[in-house]
Amino acid sequence: MQGPVVSLVTDFGQSEYVASMKAAIWRVCPECRVLDYYHGVAHGRVLQGAHLLVKAVADLPEAVHLVVVDPGVGTDRRAVVATGDGLSLVGPDNGVLEPALRGIDDVVVRDLEAGAPQISEVFHGRDVFAPAAARLAMGEDPDTFSTVGPGLYPLMEYGYDRFGGRIITHVAHVDVFGNVQVPVPKHEAAGFLLGVERLTVWIADQSHEARAVGTYGQLGVGELGVLVSSSGHLEVAVRDGPAAAVLEARIGDEIAFDVP
Amino acid sequence: MQGPVVSLVTDFGQSEYVASMKAAIWRVCPECRVLDYYHGVAHGRVLQGAHLLVKAVADLPEAVHLVVVDPGVGTDRRAVVATGDGLSLVGPDNGVLEPALRGIDDVVVRDLEAGAPQISEVFHGRDVFAPAAARLAMGEDPDTFSTVGPGLYPLMEYGYDRFGGRIITHVAHVDVFGNVQVPVPKHEAAGFLLGVERLTVWIADQSHEARAVGTYGQLGVGELGVLVSSSGHLEVAVRDGPAAAVLEARIGDEIAFDVP
Amino acid sequence: MQGPVVSLVTDFGQSEYVASMKAAIWRVCPECRVLDYYHGVAHGRVLQGAHLLVKAVADLPEAVHLVVVDPGVGTDRRAVVATGDGLSLVGPDNGVLEPALRGIDDVVVRDLEAGAPQISEVFHGRDVFAPAAARLAMGEDPDTFSTVGPGLYPLMEYGYDRFGGRIITHVAHVDVFGNVQVPVPKHEAAGFLLGVERLTVWIADQSHEARAVGTYGQLGVGELGVLVSSSGHLEVAVRDGPAAAVLEARIGDEIAFDVP
Repeated sequence: MQGPVVSLVTDFGQSEYVASMKAAIWRVCPECRVLDYYHGVAHGRVLQGAHLLVKAVADLPEAVHLVVVDPGVGTDRRAVVATGDGLSLVGPDNGVLEPALRGIDDVVVRDLEAGAPQISEVFHGRDVFAPAAARLAMGEDPDTFSTVGPGLYPLMEYGYDRFGGRIITHVAHVDVFGNVQVPVPKHEAAGFLLGVERLTVWIADQSHEARAVGTYGQLGVGELGVLVSSSGHLEVAVRDGPAAAVLEARIGDEIAFDVP
Repeated sequence: MQGPVVSLVTDFGQSEYVASMKAAIWRVCPECRVLDYYHGVAHGRVLQGAHLLVKAVADLPEAVHLVVVDPGVGTDRRAVVATGDGLSLVGPDNGVLEPALRGIDDVVVRDLEAGAPQISEVFHGRDVFAPAAARLAMGEDPDTFSTVGPGLYPLMEYGYDRFGGRIITHVAHVDVFGNVQVPVPKHEAAGFLLGVERLTVWIADQSHEARAVGTYGQLGVGELGVLVSSSGHLEVAVRDGPAAAVLEARIGDEIAFDVP
Repeated sequence: MQGPVVSLVTDFGQSEYVASMKAAIWRVCPECRVLDYYHGVAHGRVLQGAHLLVKAVADLPEAVHLVVVDPGVGTDRRAVVATGDGLSLVGPDNGVLEPALRGIDDVVVRDLEAGAPQISEVFHGRDVFAPAAARLAMGEDPDTFSTVGPGLYPLMEYGYDRFGGRIITHVAHVDVFGNVQVPVPKHEAAGFLLGVERLTVWIADQSHEARAVGTYGQLGVGELGVLVSSSGHLEVAVRDGPAAAVLEARIGDEIAFDVP
C-alpha cells in the first residue's frame, strides 16, 4: 500500500527548490513517500551534509538517500549513485556521500549522465539526482541509467584522531538546540568516556571544563557536558542552553577532547 | 486507500529530529500520513505546546496527536497515552496534554515504558512516543503497550479568570503574523465581547486601547483590535502588523482585558 | 495507488495555518498528496506569490494549485477557481493567479461562496480555498461548488518592457541563495542575452556591471552574473554569495538591464 521512501538532505533551506525536486521524484515514482530529512545544511558545507547523511542512513537504512550539497555544481565533479550493503545514495561525488558508506566492502559507484553542464537551466537536483533516486526507489536496475565507475571521493575531514586520552576532530554539526556534534562514532565515544567523570574540551585555543554524562538530565542548568548523542555520536551539550554559543563553535572548527 | 494521520507538535524547529520521529512512525505504520502541525514551539514552553495541541485537536479530532515539548526529559515525568471522547494523545505528562482533554469525562491515561532513562541515546520522541503513536494509529489496543495509570498533570497556567468585565489570563502563543492568542475559548470570548466596541488590554502594567471587531478587515491599518480568532480563541491583532511587538508580549506574560 | 497533488503557495511561513489547510484538504480528499511548494512569500506580497505560482505550475502542471497570499481578506475581493489548458488554480482574485494563466485562451474563472465575511472565525484558506482545491483534485465538476464569473484581475506589475537593448521590470523574488529573479521568461531572456558578454544592471539609480553567463560555475567567486535560471527566468546571481545583498534589491524594486 505504502510506497518506497526517498529521503532528502540539502542546503536548500525552506525553498521552492525542494518542491521542484519532489515534483521530479513524483513524476517518475508517484507512490514514493518523500521525507524532508534536513534542508538546513550551511550553504555548500559538505562536512555537515555528510554528517546529516550518516544520521539519515542510520534512521532509514532502507530508503533511497538523495543529497544535494553541491558547491561544485557546474564544474566537473561526478554525479553518482552509490550502493552497498543494502544502502542507496544519490548525489554529487564531492565527499558528501563517502562517510555514510565507510567500512562497507561491496560499494559500487555509478556515474549519472549529468546533461548539459553549460546552462544553468539544468538544475542537477531536479533534473539529474531526483529522477535517478526515484528510479532506484522504484526498484529499477541502476545499470539502465548509470555506468559503473571508480570509487567515491573521500572526505578526510570527516573523521578523528585518537592519541590515548586525546581525541582531535572537527565540528560537523550544530543542532537546533545548539548541541555540538563531531564525527566520533558510538563505539569509540563510549570507550573514550568509560569511567571518565570530567574532561577538557579545546576549541580555538580555549579550554572548557566539562562533565561526562549519560544524559542531559544529569547536568546542572548551564553546565557543559560531553555525552553520546541520540544518533550515536560524541556531543558537547549544555543543559537548557546552546553549547555552540558557549564554545563559540562553528562547523569545520577543529576541536579536541582530553581526559585525565 | 489513505492511511491514518499522526499529527506532530514539537519544539524541534526545522531539525533532523522531526525526520527521525517520522522514520520511527513509518517503521511501525508505513501507511501513516504524518502531518507537521507545528514545530515552532519555543524550546521547552509547555504552555505554548498545549495551546498548539488544542488547535491541532480542533483541526484533526480523528488523528493521533504526538507532542514532544519536554523540558523534563531525563527526569521522572511520566510518558503517557491519553484517550477520551475519540481523541488520542501521546507525549510527556508535564501538563502539555491536559488542556486538550479538559471537560471530557472518560479520559484514560496509560503509562508507556520509557526505556533506560540514564542514557541520552534514548531519544524519547523517536524511541518511546513515536512508536506508541504509530501503534495507536494502526488501531492497536493501547493495553498491549501501556498500562492504565493516574490522571494527567494539570496545566494551571492554561486558563483564565473572569471577574465581570475583566478577564485575566496569559499569552499562550504569538502566531506568524504577530497575533497574540490567549486561552479563552470561543464561547467565553464571544460572550465577553458581545456588544462591546472598545476595550483596554493590560500587559506588563501598560494599557493599550483596542477595538472589538469581527474580522481584521474592520481595523484601520496599524489599529489594535481584539477578536475571536479562526481557531476560536480570544486574540489581539493589528491590521497588517505584529500585535506582539506593539504589546511587547511574550509567551507566558500575564495579560488582562477590561471592557467598560 | 497514489492520489492527486494539491500544491500550496502561501505567506504563512512555518505556521500552524498550513497544517489547518492540509487538514481541511484531507477531510475532503484523504488520498490527496499535499505539497508545500513555498510558504515564504513576504506577508501580503502578491507579486512574489504570483512568481512562485508561475514556478509551481511549471513544475507541476497537473496539480491543483492553491494560493493564499491575501492582503485583502475581509474585503470584497473575489474568491475564485481559475482553470484553462489543463491547469487548475484556487485563490483570491487579487492578481496573484493571473500571470500563471497568461497567454491561455480558454481560461474560465468561477466564484466561490466565501461564507460570512464579517467574522474572523472564517479562515478563507482553510474554510473556502482548501475545500475547493480538494474537490477539484477529486475530479469534481467545479460547477457544483462555484459559479462562472468575469475574468481574472490582472497583475500589471508582473511583466516587463523591452526597448531594444534595455529591459525594465521589477524584482519578483529573491531565492534562498540570494539570487534575484525577475518576470522575464526564458524565450525573451535567452534572446536578450544572446551573444552578449557584459551588461549593466540598474537598481535604485545604482549601476552594476555584470557578466552574461550560462551557469553559476562560469562566474568567478563574488562576480555578478546574469543568466537564465533553472526555472526559466532572467536572474541576477553572484557565485557563492547573495546577489540581492550586492544589489540591495528588495521585492517590488524596479530593475533595468542594459546590453551594449
